[in-house]
Amino acid sequence: MSTSKEFIANKELIDSSREKKSPSTPSFKNSYRPRSMSTCSTDTSSCSSSASLSEDDDGTPVRSRKQQNSSGFSDFCVKDVRLNVYGRREIDLAEQEMTGLIALKKQTLDSKPLRGARIVGCTPITAPTAVLIETLGALGAELRWCACNIYSTQNEVAAALAEVGFSIYAWRGESVDDFWYCIEKCFSCSNWTPNMIMDDGGDATHFCQSKYPQVFKNLIGIVEESATGIHRLYKLLRGEKLLVPAINIQGCVTKGQFDTRYSCRESVIVSLKKCMSDLMFGGKQVVLCGYGEVGKGCCQSLRSLGCTVYVTEIDPICALQACMDGFRVVKLNEVIRHVDIVIAATGNKNVVTREHMDKMKNMGIVCCMSSCHNEIDVQSLKSEELKWERIRSNVDHVRWPDGKTMVLLASGHHIQHSCSSVPSFVTSITATTQLLALMELFKGASASGQYKNGADIYMLPKKMDEYVANLHLQAFDAHLTELTEEQCKYSGLPKHGPFKSNHYRY
Amino acid sequence: MSTSKEFIANKELIDSSREKKSPSTPSFKNSYRPRSMSTCSTDTSSCSSSASLSEDDDGTPVRSRKQQNSSGFSDFCVKDVRLNVYGRREIDLAEQEMTGLIALKKQTLDSKPLRGARIVGCTPITAPTAVLIETLGALGAELRWCACNIYSTQNEVAAALAEVGFSIYAWRGESVDDFWYCIEKCFSCSNWTPNMIMDDGGDATHFCQSKYPQVFKNLIGIVEESATGIHRLYKLLRGEKLLVPAINIQGCVTKGQFDTRYSCRESVIVSLKKCMSDLMFGGKQVVLCGYGEVGKGCCQSLRSLGCTVYVTEIDPICALQACMDGFRVVKLNEVIRHVDIVIAATGNKNVVTREHMDKMKNMGIVCCMSSCHNEIDVQSLKSEELKWERIRSNVDHVRWPDGKTMVLLASGHHIQHSCSSVPSFVTSITATTQLLALMELFKGASASGQYKNGADIYMLPKKMDEYVANLHLQAFDAHLTELTEEQCKYSGLPKHGPFKSNHYRY
Amino acid sequence: MSTSKEFIANKELIDSSREKKSPSTPSFKNSYRPRSMSTCSTDTSSCSSSASLSEDDDGTPVRSRKQQNSSGFSDFCVKDVRLNVYGRREIDLAEQEMTGLIALKKQTLDSKPLRGARIVGCTPITAPTAVLIETLGALGAELRWCACNIYSTQNEVAAALAEVGFSIYAWRGESVDDFWYCIEKCFSCSNWTPNMIMDDGGDATHFCQSKYPQVFKNLIGIVEESATGIHRLYKLLRGEKLLVPAINIQGCVTKGQFDTRYSCRESVIVSLKKCMSDLMFGGKQVVLCGYGEVGKGCCQSLRSLGCTVYVTEIDPICALQACMDGFRVVKLNEVIRHVDIVIAATGNKNVVTREHMDKMKNMGIVCCMSSCHNEIDVQSLKSEELKWERIRSNVDHVRWPDGKTMVLLASGHHIQHSCSSVPSFVTSITATTQLLALMELFKGASASGQYKNGADIYMLPKKMDEYVANLHLQAFDAHLTELTEEQCKYSGLPKHGPFKSNHYRY
Amino acid sequence: MSTSKEFIANKELIDSSREKKSPSTPSFKNSYRPRSMSTCSTDTSSCSSSASLSEDDDGTPVRSRKQQNSSGFSDFCVKDVRLNVYGRREIDLAEQEMTGLIALKKQTLDSKPLRGARIVGCTPITAPTAVLIETLGALGAELRWCACNIYSTQNEVAAALAEVGFSIYAWRGESVDDFWYCIEKCFSCSNWTPNMIMDDGGDATHFCQSKYPQVFKNLIGIVEESATGIHRLYKLLRGEKLLVPAINIQGCVTKGQFDTRYSCRESVIVSLKKCMSDLMFGGKQVVLCGYGEVGKGCCQSLRSLGCTVYVTEIDPICALQACMDGFRVVKLNEVIRHVDIVIAATGNKNVVTREHMDKMKNMGIVCCMSSCHNEIDVQSLKSEELKWERIRSNVDHVRWPDGKTMVLLASGHHIQHSCSSVPSFVTSITATTQLLALMELFKGASASGQYKNGADIYMLPKKMDEYVANLHLQAFDAHLTELTEEQCKYSGLPKHGPFKSNHYRY
Repeated sequence: MSTSKEFIANKELIDSSREKKSPSTPSFKNSYRPRSMSTCSTDTSSCSSSASLSEDDDGTPVRSRKQQNSSGFSDFCVKDVRLNVYGRREIDLAEQEMTGLIALKKQTLDSKPLRGARIVGCTPITAPTAVLIETLGALGAELRWCACNIYSTQNEVAAALAEVGFSIYAWRGESVDDFWYCIEKCFSCSNWTPNMIMDDGGDATHFCQSKYPQVFKNLIGIVEESATGIHRLYKLLRGEKLLVPAINIQGCVTKGQFDTRYSCRESVIVSLKKCMSDLMFGGKQVVLCGYGEVGKGCCQSLRSLGCTVYVTEIDPICALQACMDGFRVVKLNEVIRHVDIVIAATGNKNVVTREHMDKMKNMGIVCCMSSCHNEIDVQSLKSEELKWERIRSNVDHVRWPDGKTMVLLASGHHIQHSCSSVPSFVTSITATTQLLALMELFKGASASGQYKNGADIYMLPKKMDEYVANLHLQAFDAHLTELTEEQCKYSGLPKHGPFKSNHYRY
Repeated sequence: MSTSKEFIANKELIDSSREKKSPSTPSFKNSYRPRSMSTCSTDTSSCSSSASLSEDDDGTPVRSRKQQNSSGFSDFCVKDVRLNVYGRREIDLAEQEMTGLIALKKQTLDSKPLRGARIVGCTPITAPTAVLIETLGALGAELRWCACNIYSTQNEVAAALAEVGFSIYAWRGESVDDFWYCIEKCFSCSNWTPNMIMDDGGDATHFCQSKYPQVFKNLIGIVEESATGIHRLYKLLRGEKLLVPAINIQGCVTKGQFDTRYSCRESVIVSLKKCMSDLMFGGKQVVLCGYGEVGKGCCQSLRSLGCTVYVTEIDPICALQACMDGFRVVKLNEVIRHVDIVIAATGNKNVVTREHMDKMKNMGIVCCMSSCHNEIDVQSLKSEELKWERIRSNVDHVRWPDGKTMVLLASGHHIQHSCSSVPSFVTSITATTQLLALMELFKGASASGQYKNGADIYMLPKKMDEYVANLHLQAFDAHLTELTEEQCKYSGLPKHGPFKSNHYRY
Repeated sequence: MSTSKEFIANKELIDSSREKKSPSTPSFKNSYRPRSMSTCSTDTSSCSSSASLSEDDDGTPVRSRKQQNSSGFSDFCVKDVRLNVYGRREIDLAEQEMTGLIALKKQTLDSKPLRGARIVGCTPITAPTAVLIETLGALGAELRWCACNIYSTQNEVAAALAEVGFSIYAWRGESVDDFWYCIEKCFSCSNWTPNMIMDDGGDATHFCQSKYPQVFKNLIGIVEESATGIHRLYKLLRGEKLLVPAINIQGCVTKGQFDTRYSCRESVIVSLKKCMSDLMFGGKQVVLCGYGEVGKGCCQSLRSLGCTVYVTEIDPICALQACMDGFRVVKLNEVIRHVDIVIAATGNKNVVTREHMDKMKNMGIVCCMSSCHNEIDVQSLKSEELKWERIRSNVDHVRWPDGKTMVLLASGHHIQHSCSSVPSFVTSITATTQLLALMELFKGASASGQYKNGADIYMLPKKMDEYVANLHLQAFDAHLTELTEEQCKYSGLPKHGPFKSNHYRY
Repeated sequence: MSTSKEFIANKELIDSSREKKSPSTPSFKNSYRPRSMSTCSTDTSSCSSSASLSEDDDGTPVRSRKQQNSSGFSDFCVKDVRLNVYGRREIDLAEQEMTGLIALKKQTLDSKPLRGARIVGCTPITAPTAVLIETLGALGAELRWCACNIYSTQNEVAAALAEVGFSIYAWRGESVDDFWYCIEKCFSCSNWTPNMIMDDGGDATHFCQSKYPQVFKNLIGIVEESATGIHRLYKLLRGEKLLVPAINIQGCVTKGQFDTRYSCRESVIVSLKKCMSDLMFGGKQVVLCGYGEVGKGCCQSLRSLGCTVYVTEIDPICALQACMDGFRVVKLNEVIRHVDIVIAATGNKNVVTREHMDKMKNMGIVCCMSSCHNEIDVQSLKSEELKWERIRSNVDHVRWPDGKTMVLLASGHHIQHSCSSVPSFVTSITATTQLLALMELFKGASASGQYKNGADIYMLPKKMDEYVANLHLQAFDAHLTELTEEQCKYSGLPKHGPFKSNHYRY
């Protein structure tokens, strides 16, 4: 039966949010578990339905397969290089949306600004990242790439990259053992020593620091995009083990605004509807736990579709914002009995407890819009008296002894990840920022630049943040105004920016 | 491979909006083509991709299959009665959302108000209609049911109904010949003569009037819910051929508001995202052709997700409303070059022409939110110089010789039908209205009621419209205020309604 | 002291919503009290502060003053014809906004379509109505005009009209005796017999029918714009006393939408802020009693400025709309203790009772957005134990024995009338509709038209309603699309409308 | 004639935005002009109508008047101490809204935390600042107070403060000479030396630094709330002349959000309507120059009332936000010909030029929502060929030779200041922040605190910012959630905050 690509793509995203227990883990992992497995170790015992995850395996270990691309190149390990045609189409489609990255590529293509850069990348391997990878290559960099998460690889995309000659070591559904094997393959390559790392979560960085200290201390720099990775870099820094400069992508305005408020505003609607196609938003009562950027985005769109939205907050400033935006700020207990939907978006643990869920009304929906896997205390629902029924992908009915049923989405994991996906346009912003950060570090190395000697964690200069925004404005046919000389003088602003202080965030 | 139920459900809805040519059509159809085929006869030659529609057929004609349910009952014809378990679950889930209908059922169950009613129904056969069918049965009616559209049957739901003993004649993908066969089977049954018709589109009504005039003139009444059906009833009335009373469900406020504005407000977002999962609404320029109820709903939600929305209108009153709601009213030609998305919602023909599409920018999206299949002139795109590529289900890329690509959704058919579905809650409102209309006609027949002698087309009394709303308010935990005696006197309003005049519509 | 014109204007509007008791009323009024006094007769004993209303009187009865304009013309009675310069400027400013009316005037000016029409008008006399009056004159009509409400006359505007030769009989603060005197002066004029009435409330119509039956039965027609007036016309019709055709302006879509939803959306904000300049909307809890057109408009803008809005309703259909729009539907008692603002907008009596107000929190605000003067039971607040304090114009503090203070705006009268004003653009729509109705009736009289013989109450044809909208679209630079011949044929719509059925109202 | 208080209050605010030329200025001012006069010196030649500003002067110089309050106290100089009754009522009303400040006052009243503080204040003197002044007194501080702007004093409020014994030196319409006289009177007082300054704009600080260097170097600290003042403090710091610690109030989240986005969202609507009571927002085309916090607030509310809003921006990040929020980003020239309203909100100079205004359509409105007085190039309109007409307070018509008329509001000054006012609730947030800052510095002085030795400019600690928010949440009946121990541990957040990093601003 011919199933649409789209369906497969969604399926993979769904799966990627699940963890899988691995029977054996080599010694290294004992000390450094990959990030994707570390956060929520307790709830990996998951519900029975996840047994079906390995359905598309064919039994042969991926590592053992002998594969080469149509040019005879074989320094890669992907699920099946023959899938490359499908992957190429996905990459082509993604490229159309990634106008900012492509514009930057065109501007810098001739000067090959990354010639001499030898980068190990460790990120999700999806169509949009493939566009970044190919861009890095086009700008002169040599690359080896692995996945930052055992479920975050689109196999056909990895195949397409291998087909055109990139050394990709990644497939969907790696074991933990596979995971470290792939990272290892990126660092240990005869006649090739990396001088930069582009990381997402910190696993490649830590692997290098621990296993290849000589390589590590000679790095030009590290670019890290995740909160977790930044957290780990700061630990290294405090322990005086961070010997090289690193750039924190995560704190950039454009990345922040797009990956959170604007992205969640859309994805909360789409994710809920993908799970619950029979759901009508109009008239529903919803409580959002958390009025940070995620919460703000969700509240805005839910209300615009006719929901009555309540907010819970711990931070009085965010609570005051919620008030001024017209949302009632309540404790979860005050509204739990009558709301139709609970959305956890605090990033904290056990925000929605068993006690709360005991009080919910029949057919109430509970889901999570943060990356914290235990924000909903799903573990507490795995008790004798409650009956679970898998209704469809990402939807479980949990039934209380009195017949009251609660609808749990994506097993309590981030519904955006499980049930929808991040638009390529958003990824383009992140990717462009990453590319600029790599160029900044690399340029700094050749010059006696600011990053040269310092082992520190830097923010990308405000001006570059503005540059990323500028590159993406084209997609909207937006026309910027330029300051006159007189205005520059009057306001003290430079004609071409930066226009705001580094920590300006509104 | 195990595909989720949800996926199947969507697929069927998709298919249901397509037409299929039948090589032979019996004489009757020559004069009375089924509604589903009559509207847009020119564009049924469809694009090649529709050839794959019959994928789940097994080759054996459905009509020839010998089937009986677990009780040995066999007066039905469905795709496969063994699918009944899946259908039952869908019906159970739908029932949970159809609180208004179920409340009415409970209130009237004991008195069996439809005892003696013998109804032929001709509607889509989906989980929500199944809830209505079973309710009619529970209230005492005898029923025979067929589909009003060759693609609008959920086979597993039809199976579930047959399993519990309903005479269902319907399956997805009927030929036109099958279509009339099924209607015939509902009317021609030994020892059973219908006295009511519940129609959607007028095919059953016209079949009866033409083939069984004796049955027709003795009917107690007809309930019709579609604009097309109403149109056809008025033709009969003018020709003095409508010998029985009919109730027009379509004009009810609650049905109107829910099936259009509130429903489209959500479905436009979901349908677009289901087709284009990589789409980001924020910053997109969209033009809505038509600012009727559909357009109003679409504009509201699109803007709330960050789109800039333009409107085209022919009616100055609707245009003025668009202005007051903050939308620029333009001619399509003024904006076609720079918009990202064109949504046709006028219900008229050739609103988006080849000339318009020639001017669109690369990767512009064109789709339709009305039931009119030729609102986008898809036919004009089927010319030599344009290359079509099916990207995924419901998404075609049409490529101009210069490389400019346009994205056409659902082959220009209604994306709500093709790519999302109507929530059961909305269907509950329609179904409750239909049930009340049947009861009203049936009661009128037994009494010397208002509908007794009149061959006319009636509106459901305002009070009943309010009653439908009332039954559905419970789902929202809404608390109505009651007029005091003093207020009744002051305002001249009856304590329990009706509170507005019959044509009040705001 | 020089006070700005604007302040004066507001003051007058404020006053116009007050009633004044007259010690003596002539015999006619005993049977037919003017509309402005009939509705809420019980609450005219008002609070003491209204004693200051006559502050700008100079002691001399207006009727006794000998006045003539600069041309020596004296067939008028206004407060002070010398105020005409100020009035002229107001009229000029209003004219700038009344683009639709002026466009119609220009189109028809040459043909003088109202030549031969002799109209008695009875409406508020404000700058926008002055524009209408002058337009009627320019189109050939002869006019005599009086006020429909003892407080609704802008004296300087009346002066400006008298100055250019119109027979105006109206001033602000007429006694009831004056009121009927002015109407009488319009009908009783030697050598001049009216053949049309343009009424607002029905007082002129009833006066004519009762006092001048010969004139009445020879009228060409009546144009009436208020709900009350229509109500009274229907009474005449049922009593077979309406011997002439009348057109109901009130039911037109454009008038309805502009005078209610779109107008209230803005005026609720402005009126509240004019009374309470220290009020911040953000975070306020508001309950709207009534979700009709007024309530819908108010809810929309209040929420958009950060209020949490609750709704009370008696009508389940409107309640369901409120739910779908995201508002909680409650009984007033459920929220009265914690809301900051109560807005009555039902049009019914005693909707906000003493019992409710007893429960309100300190400094809670109570006001009315309907024309019903006793929607808030102000009378119940005039008891011993409550202390009233006039804080400023339109703002009273009512203090309970325990110190709890309630803020009552505009003495419970319509805050839109008391504290803000209707934009000329909105009035232009009404005025254009009135003008078209007069022309329609007048034309009908000369032809053997549809209104010729019939004593009935007509709606303005849909097409004219669309025409009014069309004339006002120009102000928005809106570009209508025109149907192609093919589309006309397909849809059955005429190329130039009407595009909707007569009772279409969405 | 009795004019309402409200009217007077508005009048004063209007006037306060005007500058007045003073014939003689003493030597000190030559070097240090007061801030209120320094920014836009060129446009003070204003239009003729401002000549009427001194209307309520009685000819006797305020300084020469002998006044004492009812207790015989005379160490003050206000317009007329007998106005105190009116001022007291304004203060009482303001106090009701300033719940956060009053709550803090109550909590700290007993401990008299400011006993020993001797503060010179230099701020606007309005009812809300009076509440702050009285609070400072109640907490133990000794005070002397003057105005930071020659037009920003409410005379009756100053009188009320003098009446209860505060040494207030301020009146509305001071000359520049008066201005410095008043500041001098605050610093030069026998037997009293200030040890703290609470400043708004930096004039008091600079006066002290220049004239009383001994006092200056012994100060405990300075609290400054304006951007200009902060700018001037940094200049001192760089010149090593800032010998004492200062706290920057201006950068606090709560102050920032309330004084800008949330405040402007309401005031733009109210200010425009106060100037143009005949304006209808629905359907208007508006361009906002600047999408900072002011622009964001304005855009949100204007769109919600039915305007189509365009945005101009220089900063690509803000431009991208505008796109994502659904606004078209354009250059002013692209839309200037067809917009109805231009609102300047960039804070930069000559953003709306004569060239732009030449192109505007007839009756287009131009106004400013920033504090920059020359954002609209009003000077360029003062040329021969253009005719000015003052229509009413704050509204000028400027007429081009061809008759085209432009409507200029508030002479191009901030319409929020001229035409509406900041709600007391907003001022409460600022005042509470100022009070906490004073307490922080004063406490730091007595302890060997962090501010003890450092001459630097500090931000108020995040935790105090959160505290201010917390105090104001009570007004909204908002209920904060508290972190569990487990959650504190998991997230690393302290149970009682601070919950965000110091520069978090979303």
